[in-house]
Amino acid sequence: MQGVTAAAGFRAAGVTAGLKTSGKPDVALVVNDGPDAAVAAVFTSNRAQAHPVIWSRQVVGDGAARAVVLNSGGANCFTGPFGFQTTHMTAEAVGDALGIGAGDVVVCSTGLIGVGDQTFRDGVLRGVDLASAALSADGGPDAATAIMTTDTKAKQSVVTEDGWTVGGMAKGAGMLAPGLATMLVVITTDAVQTPDQLDQALRAATRITFDRVDSDGCMSTNDTVVLLSSGASGVTPEVGDFQEALTAVCADLARQLQQDAEGASHDITIEVVHAATEDDAVTVGRSVARNNLFKAAVFGNDPNWGRVLAAIGTTDADFDPYAVDVSMNGVRVCHAGAPDQPSDTVDLTPRDTHVRIDLGVGTHAATILTNDLTHDYVHENSAYSS
Amino acid sequence: MQGVTAAAGFRAAGVTAGLKTSGKPDVALVVNDGPDAAVAAVFTSNRAQAHPVIWSRQVVGDGAARAVVLNSGGANCFTGPFGFQTTHMTAEAVGDALGIGAGDVVVCSTGLIGVGDQTFRDGVLRGVDLASAALSADGGPDAATAIMTTDTKAKQSVVTEDGWTVGGMAKGAGMLAPGLATMLVVITTDAVQTPDQLDQALRAATRITFDRVDSDGCMSTNDTVVLLSSGASGVTPEVGDFQEALTAVCADLARQLQQDAEGASHDITIEVVHAATEDDAVTVGRSVARNNLFKAAVFGNDPNWGRVLAAIGTTDADFDPYAVDVSMNGVRVCHAGAPDQPSDTVDLTPRDTHVRIDLGVGTHAATILTNDLTHDYVHENSAYSS
Repeated sequence: MQGVTAAAGFRAAGVTAGLKTSGKPDVALVVNDGPDAAVAAVFTSNRAQAHPVIWSRQVVGDGAARAVVLNSGGANCFTGPFGFQTTHMTAEAVGDALGIGAGDVVVCSTGLIGVGDQTFRDGVLRGVDLASAALSADGGPDAATAIMTTDTKAKQSVVTEDGWTVGGMAKGAGMLAPGLATMLVVITTDAVQTPDQLDQALRAATRITFDRVDSDGCMSTNDTVVLLSSGASGVTPEVGDFQEALTAVCADLARQLQQDAEGASHDITIEVVHAATEDDAVTVGRSVARNNLFKAAVFGNDPNWGRVLAAIGTTDADFDPYAVDVSMNGVRVCHAGAPDQPSDTVDLTPRDTHVRIDLGVGTHAATILTNDLTHDYVHENSAYSS
Repeated sequence: MQGVTAAAGFRAAGVTAGLKTSGKPDVALVVNDGPDAAVAAVFTSNRAQAHPVIWSRQVVGDGAARAVVLNSGGANCFTGPFGFQTTHMTAEAVGDALGIGAGDVVVCSTGLIGVGDQTFRDGVLRGVDLASAALSADGGPDAATAIMTTDTKAKQSVVTEDGWTVGGMAKGAGMLAPGLATMLVVITTDAVQTPDQLDQALRAATRITFDRVDSDGCMSTNDTVVLLSSGASGVTPEVGDFQEALTAVCADLARQLQQDAEGASHDITIEVVHAATEDDAVTVGRSVARNNLFKAAVFGNDPNWGRVLAAIGTTDADFDPYAVDVSMNGVRVCHAGAPDQPSDTVDLTPRDTHVRIDLGVGTHAATILTNDLTHDYVHENSAYSS
């Protein structure tokens, strides 16, 4: 599994620049050697945006980028003008090392907000030097490792079609919006695609994958998903085929994010069916996914469907509270707003948990991926800063 | 402290009907002996409303009510037509016992959603019999005890003015909307007030008290605040004086709810100042209050202001993320969107925690009360159903 270097035309590296006190790798570089340099990206919808996000929005505006540099060990967010200058200097350093313009370098950072002092800057710039020297056509796994923060596993995915490939890497334990674990994703392809095609495909894919992972309802200031195409395969896939491969890579990475969420003991799939609109289905699923009482109940293996209904009731979705069905792991515990099968027939001990909500008013559906609220979540987010 | 029996013209009781396996008191009755029978009430804004809420909305519609019966040990929500019939029968039983119409009896229930079977019905009706026989002019404390669920303390408050009194009781550890701990509040007064005056005063008071407690962001299906006036003092207070006394009782009870929130180790006051509108200030405060990462950080005594800014960034409030100041317990840790005083100079060990957010764009302010996210919260909401 070569992740971002599975597609032809890409090199990558992951190095240790000393940003992390743990001494683990912390700077990654992904380079598109072309012939094309097409790019598309989506960013956090948080209005408090980190300096790298502000910078990178500008970089991808013209549809061209040659490299993505990523660091863990500091978010460089709310770090003042000095922080923005650091981001700019990082792009320039990559540009100098590769002989490209700084304006073609996407920058991503992840770590603690407020971290971005001279030590941080020195570390990132040292990382750029080391990574530029370490670039290789099989550097994908190293890059995937260097962007990890509280992740326990590097996350990569590859789909290979007839003569072309889509591959990617991800870090984080949240969602595109929200997810304060800062989700960073780089996806590469050697398919021939215009920037507009990339943009359209990326938005369509993220809308139903990363945007539907809602681990803890918190929205990061640094979330970034970048898609680069080198065109090195010389193949222009059918639009539907490219969309399918890209969505598969995004869905696989999204699932990996959910499965590695901080402190979680259950991966909860919330499937909302028979909604009046897809928006309604997403709204209902997200409301349940963000309900701490429901999430704590799942941690306790308690099929507390009342908390599901109470969460649905906070939304403006089209439904009748007394006509809703709720099933948990295949057992319909609530029918038409009243108790159905006994709760003690539900087995919630497996990590994979399935909640099905039938609103009974329409034909639309959506699925949200979330996690339970556990002691380990509280511990990981209270015992030390992140 | 006589709570709901501090004002003249009221009797109350709290009895043990066997609804709780713990054998603790579980049914309360508050009776207004007049001469007036004016009432106003506010209910949960959750669209999934328990049977007692649906019933009681109708009861207070004409501005008159003679009694409030409340049970813990079962929410009687999502219990089907049988459950609604139980609520109706409960009101009729109270009406029969007191010689009043069932349509003048407000019903409140709290406990597990989905609980409302024959055993529950039998228990509540037995409780009505017992409570009717136990009514007394100093029964306020017993009533306040009988409505407790996970509360560790009975909650009462009284303000006595020149010849008239406002008193009340509350249970729960949440907020009017939201707060899945089900907040039930009964407030009584012997001041002479029309139903319209009561309604106006109650809405004005709850808007800035109960509505601004947001312990865990979860909205109950049963929340109810009822205000009854007997007129027994014969005194008609100045409008401002009555409002002040009522708001003081509501604020006191709201603070008691916060201080008894499930599993909390910090009572967090989030003060948002210099907002463009009061709505903006409330939105910002609530967003921070609902951010699990911020709440977990406070549990860990970590002044993680980055999580505060990230939470503000998810709102549509008028602000510039790079012009915000954040202070924690008096120390300004973030100025103009950059680090200010060192975080390690903030002492977050006291239970009382103060976060001040200066948006710097206007003249409006609001304060939200919340709690931290703790191991005990996860334990209490996962280890057993509630």
